[in-house]
Amino acid sequence: MKKIILAPDSFKGTISSTRICDIMESVIKKHHDDIQILKIPIADGGEGTVDCFLQAMGGRKINIPVKGPYFENIDSFYAIMPDKKTAVIEMAAAAGLPLVEGRMNPSLTTTFGVGELMQDAVKKGCKKIILGLGGSSTNDSGTGMASALGIKFFDKNNKEFVPTGGTLNNISKIDTSGKLKELEKCDIIAMCDVNNPLYGKNGAAYVFAPQKGADENMVRLLDENLKYLSDVIKNNLGIDLSIVPGSGAAGGLGAGLVAFAGAKIQSGIETILDIVGFDKLLDGADLVLTGEGRIDSQSLSGKAVVGIARKAKLKNVPVIAVVGDSSDNIDAVYNEGITAIISINRSPLPFEVARLKSESNLALTIDSLMRILDIALNAKKI
Amino acid sequence: MKKIILAPDSFKGTISSTRICDIMESVIKKHHDDIQILKIPIADGGEGTVDCFLQAMGGRKINIPVKGPYFENIDSFYAIMPDKKTAVIEMAAAAGLPLVEGRMNPSLTTTFGVGELMQDAVKKGCKKIILGLGGSSTNDSGTGMASALGIKFFDKNNKEFVPTGGTLNNISKIDTSGKLKELEKCDIIAMCDVNNPLYGKNGAAYVFAPQKGADENMVRLLDENLKYLSDVIKNNLGIDLSIVPGSGAAGGLGAGLVAFAGAKIQSGIETILDIVGFDKLLDGADLVLTGEGRIDSQSLSGKAVVGIARKAKLKNVPVIAVVGDSSDNIDAVYNEGITAIISINRSPLPFEVARLKSESNLALTIDSLMRILDIALNAKKI
Repeated sequence: MKKIILAPDSFKGTISSTRICDIMESVIKKHHDDIQILKIPIADGGEGTVDCFLQAMGGRKINIPVKGPYFENIDSFYAIMPDKKTAVIEMAAAAGLPLVEGRMNPSLTTTFGVGELMQDAVKKGCKKIILGLGGSSTNDSGTGMASALGIKFFDKNNKEFVPTGGTLNNISKIDTSGKLKELEKCDIIAMCDVNNPLYGKNGAAYVFAPQKGADENMVRLLDENLKYLSDVIKNNLGIDLSIVPGSGAAGGLGAGLVAFAGAKIQSGIETILDIVGFDKLLDGADLVLTGEGRIDSQSLSGKAVVGIARKAKLKNVPVIAVVGDSSDNIDAVYNEGITAIISINRSPLPFEVARLKSESNLALTIDSLMRILDIALNAKKI
Repeated sequence: MKKIILAPDSFKGTISSTRICDIMESVIKKHHDDIQILKIPIADGGEGTVDCFLQAMGGRKINIPVKGPYFENIDSFYAIMPDKKTAVIEMAAAAGLPLVEGRMNPSLTTTFGVGELMQDAVKKGCKKIILGLGGSSTNDSGTGMASALGIKFFDKNNKEFVPTGGTLNNISKIDTSGKLKELEKCDIIAMCDVNNPLYGKNGAAYVFAPQKGADENMVRLLDENLKYLSDVIKNNLGIDLSIVPGSGAAGGLGAGLVAFAGAKIQSGIETILDIVGFDKLLDGADLVLTGEGRIDSQSLSGKAVVGIARKAKLKNVPVIAVVGDSSDNIDAVYNEGITAIISINRSPLPFEVARLKSESNLALTIDSLMRILDIALNAKKI
């Protein structure tokens, strides 16, 4: 084997995709130190997304101060890829849940800092922004982000203000005339793997606000406010967000990006494979190693392993999925182009125990995998 | 691949080795129906040993009535291999624990029926008897077996009797003059993977009698009786059993076979690989699949997988061990000649749950294994 691509998703809550890449690489190198290894840790849009892109592509990490979820000053960051035209931002770096630990309140928090990161990127000449939406502490539908980009929100007294989840219902007018000019020449892609609408029982407030600290009453209020904003946007900007799947991601930041920044919502894996030029990387590859925490036939849509398998299949490159848990009925997975599945579980142990051994189990499983591949590769009479 | 040898041990208490062979074969055939598959389910000397040899070698199953553990009439069996000279007997078929369910008492039970099976085999012309010692309900040190073969035991009143565990101390004389003549030209091999001596704290009574129904008092009595018998044998037959490891197997049947029938005690895997001509079978083989319930570096002696790996290594045939549980520190296993280890666990589940899925987990793991091997086999540029 001459070239192996490592493109694992994270094992959620257990091992990050960058760590998985490093473990896989070190074991493979032990067996064959002459194999070319490409590491493409799959980002899920949440914390770690920027680092994933940096590991896969190289590039430069930009550290800048922005406003945090409570409009306080914080240190944040994003990345500019080697083409110097593409920025990668994770919304969590300016408005994520870890930033509000102990003081969660999605009626008060803002995405203002996310807009500041975007502004910095376009001012540095970026023509494309990849935005990861995972891990938000907010429910402001991106109005904070929009404010940072020059869009103005006015209340019924014609007073300008920066709305938050709890004050969206005070917006009576939106003025986009001051919007940052450079944004118009910038493609914005929101990485998003949920299809939730902006409001309603499956919307941002009902589905995601409870884990951000909202009680039942607050959820109802936040939901009403999102519906109100949706109407204002329809009337003021002529955009009907009710038909955009994924609008409800990141406390409505999905909707805000579409309405205020002309963003396109796209699945995470599709975005990543596009940006890294996965099709081209596949040329000359002998094997792709992907993987995720759990694989089953019921939840294939939007899965990284499936997105990877489909592309690899077109180029006849075999794909092995290394997983923490595999369901029994996996024919549908194989039909998608996965060549083989191997589980990292070595002993019959419950998850609470097994998870503590995830890294060594992964390493030993990759070791076994290389040994098995070598059997076939070394066989003379085969 | 043209030829694969399947030589798994059982997954103790979960799947028999014959069933493992059948599952492995059916999955491999799905991928490559032109591969020659040799099935050598590894017998452990207990229940199922005869069937293992029949599946590995072919041959004829002989059904005959004999005396059971309580001298009652039972239907029993053994096998004669295709050479018509080799018999395979499992002691459990005439004196096993399942035959005394609900009435366990190792002071009363006899191996008489085992002797009858041996007698039938030699009378049918067998020149070699392989005897599996696992699963005994007895503690008579093979005196019942010896009685069936014509050896006479007398008490102090010179009255002939058939001793059992509780009456060994009544033996005052042993007369071997009436021993079945054909036995002298017959090699007898006792398959045994324990090293326990006949008596003492590590002996047959102390270690094994409790699981056969003996309480503390009975254990002490049985142990004293075994020591007594050992002295009688030394005085009457000039054989010192105290130095024979494995004498304590099967309630002292190991010792009895050595003393009364000139048997050789040999490890199970060594015996099986000899009988099936494993060295010869390895010629032209591309792969050996072995396996066992649990593999670790601490308990390698006498292990089937290690015996197999050592022989395969000499002929450069790779060996994959498919296991129910693999410890983390397995370098010593690889040093013995195992090429790769793959675990059947697909999900992080405790043993009580996982064991119910053992068969499907095994099938899906072999499926993955074939898929992985095919990746390497199919690769054009490799």
